[in-house]
Amino acid sequence: MAAELPAHSLIAKHRPTLDQALETIRTRAYWSPHPEHPKAYGENGSLGMAEGKAAFDALLGTRLDLGQPGTDDWVGDETSPYGPTLGVTYPHADIDTLLPAMKAGQRAWRDAGAEARAVVCLEILKRISDRTHEFAHAVMHTSGQAFMMAFQAGGPHAQDRGLEAVAYAYAEQVHTPDDAEWTKPQGKRDPLAMTKRFKPVPRGIALVIGCNTFPTWNGYPGLFASLATGNAVLVKPHPRAVLPLALTVRVAREVLAGAGFDPNLVALAVERPGEGIAKILATRPEIRIIDYTGSTSFGDWLEANARQAQVYTEKAGVNTVLVDSTDNYKGMLSNLAFSLSLYSGQMCTTPQNLLIPRDGITTDEGPKSYDEVVADLAKSVSGLLGDDARANALLGAIVNPDVKARLEAAAGLGEVALASREISNPEFPGAVVRTPVIVKLDGAKPDDEAAYMSECFGPVSFAVAVDSTADAVELLRRTVREKGAMTVGAYTTSGEVADSIEEVCLEECAQLSLNLTGGVYVNQTAAFSDFHGSGGNPAANAALCDGAFVANRFRVVEVRREA
Amino acid sequence: MAAELPAHSLIAKHRPTLDQALETIRTRAYWSPHPEHPKAYGENGSLGMAEGKAAFDALLGTRLDLGQPGTDDWVGDETSPYGPTLGVTYPHADIDTLLPAMKAGQRAWRDAGAEARAVVCLEILKRISDRTHEFAHAVMHTSGQAFMMAFQAGGPHAQDRGLEAVAYAYAEQVHTPDDAEWTKPQGKRDPLAMTKRFKPVPRGIALVIGCNTFPTWNGYPGLFASLATGNAVLVKPHPRAVLPLALTVRVAREVLAGAGFDPNLVALAVERPGEGIAKILATRPEIRIIDYTGSTSFGDWLEANARQAQVYTEKAGVNTVLVDSTDNYKGMLSNLAFSLSLYSGQMCTTPQNLLIPRDGITTDEGPKSYDEVVADLAKSVSGLLGDDARANALLGAIVNPDVKARLEAAAGLGEVALASREISNPEFPGAVVRTPVIVKLDGAKPDDEAAYMSECFGPVSFAVAVDSTADAVELLRRTVREKGAMTVGAYTTSGEVADSIEEVCLEECAQLSLNLTGGVYVNQTAAFSDFHGSGGNPAANAALCDGAFVANRFRVVEVRREA
Repeated sequence: MAAELPAHSLIAKHRPTLDQALETIRTRAYWSPHPEHPKAYGENGSLGMAEGKAAFDALLGTRLDLGQPGTDDWVGDETSPYGPTLGVTYPHADIDTLLPAMKAGQRAWRDAGAEARAVVCLEILKRISDRTHEFAHAVMHTSGQAFMMAFQAGGPHAQDRGLEAVAYAYAEQVHTPDDAEWTKPQGKRDPLAMTKRFKPVPRGIALVIGCNTFPTWNGYPGLFASLATGNAVLVKPHPRAVLPLALTVRVAREVLAGAGFDPNLVALAVERPGEGIAKILATRPEIRIIDYTGSTSFGDWLEANARQAQVYTEKAGVNTVLVDSTDNYKGMLSNLAFSLSLYSGQMCTTPQNLLIPRDGITTDEGPKSYDEVVADLAKSVSGLLGDDARANALLGAIVNPDVKARLEAAAGLGEVALASREISNPEFPGAVVRTPVIVKLDGAKPDDEAAYMSECFGPVSFAVAVDSTADAVELLRRTVREKGAMTVGAYTTSGEVADSIEEVCLEECAQLSLNLTGGVYVNQTAAFSDFHGSGGNPAANAALCDGAFVANRFRVVEVRREA
Repeated sequence: MAAELPAHSLIAKHRPTLDQALETIRTRAYWSPHPEHPKAYGENGSLGMAEGKAAFDALLGTRLDLGQPGTDDWVGDETSPYGPTLGVTYPHADIDTLLPAMKAGQRAWRDAGAEARAVVCLEILKRISDRTHEFAHAVMHTSGQAFMMAFQAGGPHAQDRGLEAVAYAYAEQVHTPDDAEWTKPQGKRDPLAMTKRFKPVPRGIALVIGCNTFPTWNGYPGLFASLATGNAVLVKPHPRAVLPLALTVRVAREVLAGAGFDPNLVALAVERPGEGIAKILATRPEIRIIDYTGSTSFGDWLEANARQAQVYTEKAGVNTVLVDSTDNYKGMLSNLAFSLSLYSGQMCTTPQNLLIPRDGITTDEGPKSYDEVVADLAKSVSGLLGDDARANALLGAIVNPDVKARLEAAAGLGEVALASREISNPEFPGAVVRTPVIVKLDGAKPDDEAAYMSECFGPVSFAVAVDSTADAVELLRRTVREKGAMTVGAYTTSGEVADSIEEVCLEECAQLSLNLTGGVYVNQTAAFSDFHGSGGNPAANAALCDGAFVANRFRVVEVRREA
């Protein structure tokens, strides 16, 4: 059967996008082929707002049959953080049947070469992009993100990160040519002459272990990096956030089949409650690559036990913002207030510890004491979230009961500078919506240290009083070194202080945002330009996305013969 | 104090070489800046034959003082495989003093940037190249390689592999620009504009654990890859092969100091007999990268235990040559005879198992039975090594008593097709020189399988009778999958058989040489063109050299601020 979308037509369609992505990862200027505005969709084959909602609604209560081999049951019990149960069931796999089936198509996928794989990946991303509105609802009702964030972060931004991974994977594979002629002079004798062929070969089957909060954004880089380098990919979503990745797998299988490849190159593994298949899959000999986002404890377990695989982990960190001084006090407060509030602080990049000298700081509005800074920040957050509609649009819902429990416990850790407030969501009365809590702690008190030196994932921030900026810099160093950090922020008008913070970030390997007072936030990174994590501190062993993220997902085999 | 050789003058001197290396790793055509012929040295500051020998002789019996901090003793008891004791002693380090001293210069080295580091590395290689004759004797009298091989493999070929690693490291670091301006349109509002700086940062201190047989060739890739990516490098040579790496460290320290950097960025760690410092060093928190060549057992130990480090290992494998048919019987025999004989088979790339159908093969000289092929190969080896002077020049000396013991035991494993012969070396009467043994085994006998499925490092080859070529292909697959292989060779006139062998090598990730009958041998690889190992089978977790070998030796830290 002829492929309905053969590689050559996909090359014609997507090569310009691939080239632009390749160019952009080198310039790191702004670019994205995926529109951020909901109204940009609805034409040229993409689903508009109403169509996307209808497509999502039509999924509820259904069985999502992916046509996978070895399906021995139908499982799934997702409940939206906004209240409704989704009622979607997914294939449960007999992995002794599914894993061998996933290997069957690997040879053709390998032999297709780096360019064909890249454009097939781009076609998958394009079809996902066309359904961005449908994905937005799926992400919203599994992660608890508010609609607009689910739309952007779960849609175009996730697609950007996937495309970025494809570009890196392609660049790394074509670094070595397909063929070489090698002729070595031998003085008066005939030269030695060899013909060499080089082929990137996959490691095997890659496993993507998805997370609850950003199923697509955190799942796409590993998925597309592995697929683009010739591996089959088994996607094991978080049990509370299956739907966005199940839809992703469905699109990938359709595109693979349409392009003449085996759809089983991408498959889904959903578990029964308590089945714990991540550990079982992660140590199977067929699994040679693992991408994981989640808790430090399971990430550490994977690194220690999945020894047959290349393991890429994004775990937990303690993100710090160091406040020394500012020439834009209002801008600093509003920028920080937004960062603390967005998605109720349920981002791996949300600041947790705000280090503020106990003697206060200098600002364009005169000196501000520690208490004033904390009170002003609390006011700024309250102002930002004062209107319930706006608060709902920013906060989204608390993703799970653990986060709610941590939020409630945090108030007991110190003096509460800003209490968390319950917000009702008229559209979804079942949603648990909470504003962030800010707790004052003393950097010098051992009891307080136990609190601020642990990750408290969720809408909890600690305003940590420190003896001086120099003290803060040293605490920053210790925090990154011991606990890791996905992000570091700092506010200072002093070049010397900026230098000392930058030096700590260079030495401890953390990504630094300096003096953000406008519309870019410490907890947001842009694909093709910003690195997400550094891969060099305990928060993550890889960065999104760089050469190291892709280079070891394939190997190069050489066949040489005399010319 | 001004640097005597500042980076800008080194850039002018070495940038063309770096550019040529960067070009060559992309074309993989032949190139080397390091002359292979001994007579090419002696002018333009390089040591000639007599000067090199004199320099080596002057080292014997001396203390090699590198001026390292924390030196608490002088150790070393190398004995040449050719007989003489070297009598050179080296600094023994108090690592609690040495490791912190190695970190002192890292900031300046990091801040110098990728290009300055690359040209400093090239200057180190140039000064080593100038002393190639001296290094040749040092390699010869620690590895047991014959002079010409020690000269070429220990000199220009090792330098090529070092330069190749520098080129890969440079290319990977400059993939990300130093700076970026990022401007994101916001509809009618002002665009978001950010200024971003990106800096490659080292992981920390890298440890190179050297081997006995190829101290420079196997040591240089990791050493230069780590140094070029900003790390300090601690070199821990094999206790029987210290001198070549000690001389390397001496040159590196001189060049670093001359270029205005801290010489302690490169240091030597030599152990007292039985001290076992490799394990101690490998698990120190300061050590973040390890390059190791040696036994599977210690390589596996490192991978399991040195969890704080990126670990690159080249361990043991069982290399196979599959013989199906040939249109150049004589060429095949002489090519194989050379591969089995060179350096008494003490290369990680030497073929061990020759798989030959028990019903014989077709050749340009008519059909040949299994027995004939084995007898003809034995004759070819005997002919090659019939003249003692030539035999000495090819075989070198047995590197250590373990190899000699394995050689002697091998004769008891099956019918001996070619017995090992003792050869006297008039120049070095103390040298243990042995021709290879060829033992006939039956692929179908379990007892024989125990022999041919284990690595038997040294001048031992097994002529394994198999039921058919198809049987041989499956045995090849099983051998690579279970035991690993640095090299695979095959002889066939059938395109179909070649395809099936190639497919096994692609699936099991092994480097394949097809139908070699001339002056290129399965056990030799050329830098810039051939990959050494694949990094995808149990013999090694990395290849020399590719992007994966360098990409994770550094991380990139981004500092962003509003434009």
